[in-house]
Amino acid sequence: MLENVRMRAPLVHCITNYVTVNDVANILIACGASPIMSDDFHEVAEITSICSGLVLNIGTLNQSTIPSMFLAGAKANELGHPVILDPVGAGASQLRTETAKKLIEEVKFSVIRGNISEIKALAMGRGITKGVDAADADKVTAETLDDTVAFARELSQKTGAIIAITGVIDIAASPDASYVIRNGHKMMSQITGSGCMLSALMGAYLAANPASELEACAAALCTMGLCGEQAYQQLLKNEAGNSSYRNFLIDEVFKLKGNMLNAGASYEIG
Amino acid sequence: MLENVRMRAPLVHCITNYVTVNDVANILIACGASPIMSDDFHEVAEITSICSGLVLNIGTLNQSTIPSMFLAGAKANELGHPVILDPVGAGASQLRTETAKKLIEEVKFSVIRGNISEIKALAMGRGITKGVDAADADKVTAETLDDTVAFARELSQKTGAIIAITGVIDIAASPDASYVIRNGHKMMSQITGSGCMLSALMGAYLAANPASELEACAAALCTMGLCGEQAYQQLLKNEAGNSSYRNFLIDEVFKLKGNMLNAGASYEIG
Amino acid sequence: MLENVRMRAPLVHCITNYVTVNDVANILIACGASPIMSDDFHEVAEITSICSGLVLNIGTLNQSTIPSMFLAGAKANELGHPVILDPVGAGASQLRTETAKKLIEEVKFSVIRGNISEIKALAMGRGITKGVDAADADKVTAETLDDTVAFARELSQKTGAIIAITGVIDIAASPDASYVIRNGHKMMSQITGSGCMLSALMGAYLAANPASELEACAAALCTMGLCGEQAYQQLLKNEAGNSSYRNFLIDEVFKLKGNMLNAGASYEIG
Repeated sequence: MLENVRMRAPLVHCITNYVTVNDVANILIACGASPIMSDDFHEVAEITSICSGLVLNIGTLNQSTIPSMFLAGAKANELGHPVILDPVGAGASQLRTETAKKLIEEVKFSVIRGNISEIKALAMGRGITKGVDAADADKVTAETLDDTVAFARELSQKTGAIIAITGVIDIAASPDASYVIRNGHKMMSQITGSGCMLSALMGAYLAANPASELEACAAALCTMGLCGEQAYQQLLKNEAGNSSYRNFLIDEVFKLKGNMLNAGASYEIG
Repeated sequence: MLENVRMRAPLVHCITNYVTVNDVANILIACGASPIMSDDFHEVAEITSICSGLVLNIGTLNQSTIPSMFLAGAKANELGHPVILDPVGAGASQLRTETAKKLIEEVKFSVIRGNISEIKALAMGRGITKGVDAADADKVTAETLDDTVAFARELSQKTGAIIAITGVIDIAASPDASYVIRNGHKMMSQITGSGCMLSALMGAYLAANPASELEACAAALCTMGLCGEQAYQQLLKNEAGNSSYRNFLIDEVFKLKGNMLNAGASYEIG
Repeated sequence: MLENVRMRAPLVHCITNYVTVNDVANILIACGASPIMSDDFHEVAEITSICSGLVLNIGTLNQSTIPSMFLAGAKANELGHPVILDPVGAGASQLRTETAKKLIEEVKFSVIRGNISEIKALAMGRGITKGVDAADADKVTAETLDDTVAFARELSQKTGAIIAITGVIDIAASPDASYVIRNGHKMMSQITGSGCMLSALMGAYLAANPASELEACAAALCTMGLCGEQAYQQLLKNEAGNSSYRNFLIDEVFKLKGNMLNAGASYEIG
């Protein structure tokens, strides 16, 4: 999966927030893809056309970029490109929840990736939320795992998209198959952008592996989780904190080889 | 103060510039808070409502975000949340100076934090300025310190906000009390975002310590200054430059413990 | 050249993309300049007036910032400040190509800097492109170098601007002189923002060396290339990846001295 990204070097169009955009661009390069960020209504359809994947991230959505997301999504659907939705902060405001829901109605997504609170907000209307982080009460544990996988499969059935729920345990579910991924490190929640970067990785992996979307999505999850673990080793070695950890995380994606990913990935197929 | 931030993990709403926004988010996480960046007029009031502090930073203000700042400020005032103003580049353009002044008229700020040139521009109309940096002629020295403290107290009286003036020597003043803080390192002026990050820290510290705003403001100044000193040790150890220094600075905030802050803080109360 | 930047500390106004803006600001500080980012139509002319150089970068151009670019460009021309154009992604959309061309018609640029695909798109209308990267078929090699230099000189004649084409081999050309620069490292293409940072450096170098624009442009190219080489040594030493490389690159500019640049620069004058 990773080696296909490196070989095919897909161009990935991101309409994304300005908080983590630089990290998103650098992690796309790190995995072998090429990023292009563009959000003006007058060019997004054309930019989408020269790419092979699209990532819509509503982290700092506004009145100018929302119409661009719909337009780029329609064009990507027309061309059969994978489209990823990252509903950052869905549940935190009506604008975010409603925009994400409307996008899901009008655009066919390959993957919708969020934390459990964001995904619940989309499935059930306004939910509890802690801004852009998952609410403690929502968190997926060993006890709630089976129910959450069932919930993800059902939502996948309803939306037509793979549902990726990320947290301590990650889930990727289609209506009739699912992956549970146990890679990752708690430091990943101590930086801004882990989720945004992961959604972008999914864009790259799906663009380079269009015939196996669920597997590509799971491979992106394993990549991010494994590199999160390895980056923590760098943090210890350097007595570093969260800002350096962000660099180490992207660095590890850059250094990752396919065989390392195979050896380090920790997942179960359901 | 710091331990209250880590325990209460306040959600801090930032309407801030796109230059340093990623560092602002990561330093908020580093000190134990949670950042949420949102500037669309249609969601800012709602986002402010789920947070416990608001930071308005005019570093890249524009016609869309200016009304959002007024709206979010009004909502935060209504809810009694601390609001911080960072008048980046006040004095450098009429738009910046006038917007900052109008914000001060219409929003009740807990803290106004800027360099001496920015604060003078607000107090006295258009002043000398060097873009977003303090003009040399303005800089606070041992000779001008007493006068500057008196000026800050007076401005605090006039605006109802704590006035924080930062530079080689930092000042935090209410009408009848003041702190002079001597932590910090000159490398902090060799990166973009030291001031923005500090204003965000103040948002977190005040949100977690609402009963002691001046002390919380001083604690944020000591935190930033002390971590700036420690980050310089990392720079030396790594033979690094300004870009790595920015990471080290955030890293040090992440690693800081309450007792380290107590031991390292260098301040006088006036 | 570098020492003039450090001595004169020019204030450089950037209307630039939000992807790499933080790196652009930090590299301007690293070379001794002061950055100010501002893109609102109501302040750009005034901000340009207090600066001594202007950098227009269309990486995330939009309907709000495009008019600001024309206005700031006109003001900078009126004041005789050097203006740099970075036509990021020209060729990738009609909006980018047309905006860049119209800017070249209406604003007098000191330097137009892009990769070979971007520059060809400007010279010849829509060309091949790979998003924001140069297309493989375009890349400058030993075989095509002479032709490319001739093309650059001709385009310089036509536009009145120095043409800087960057890639494995860098070219800076006026109508009757040219530099070919062989510094640099392939890791520079593995991060986002190498080009943006370089354009900003040119803004600083020209602002501090107004009497020798071509030489200042070549010095900026040598600076970036040499620091790219040195940053790679840091990468090896730290077993790092692309995200840390970005920090090392800016760090090396910060640490660079005039004599190191003279010793390490690798160029031919034509």
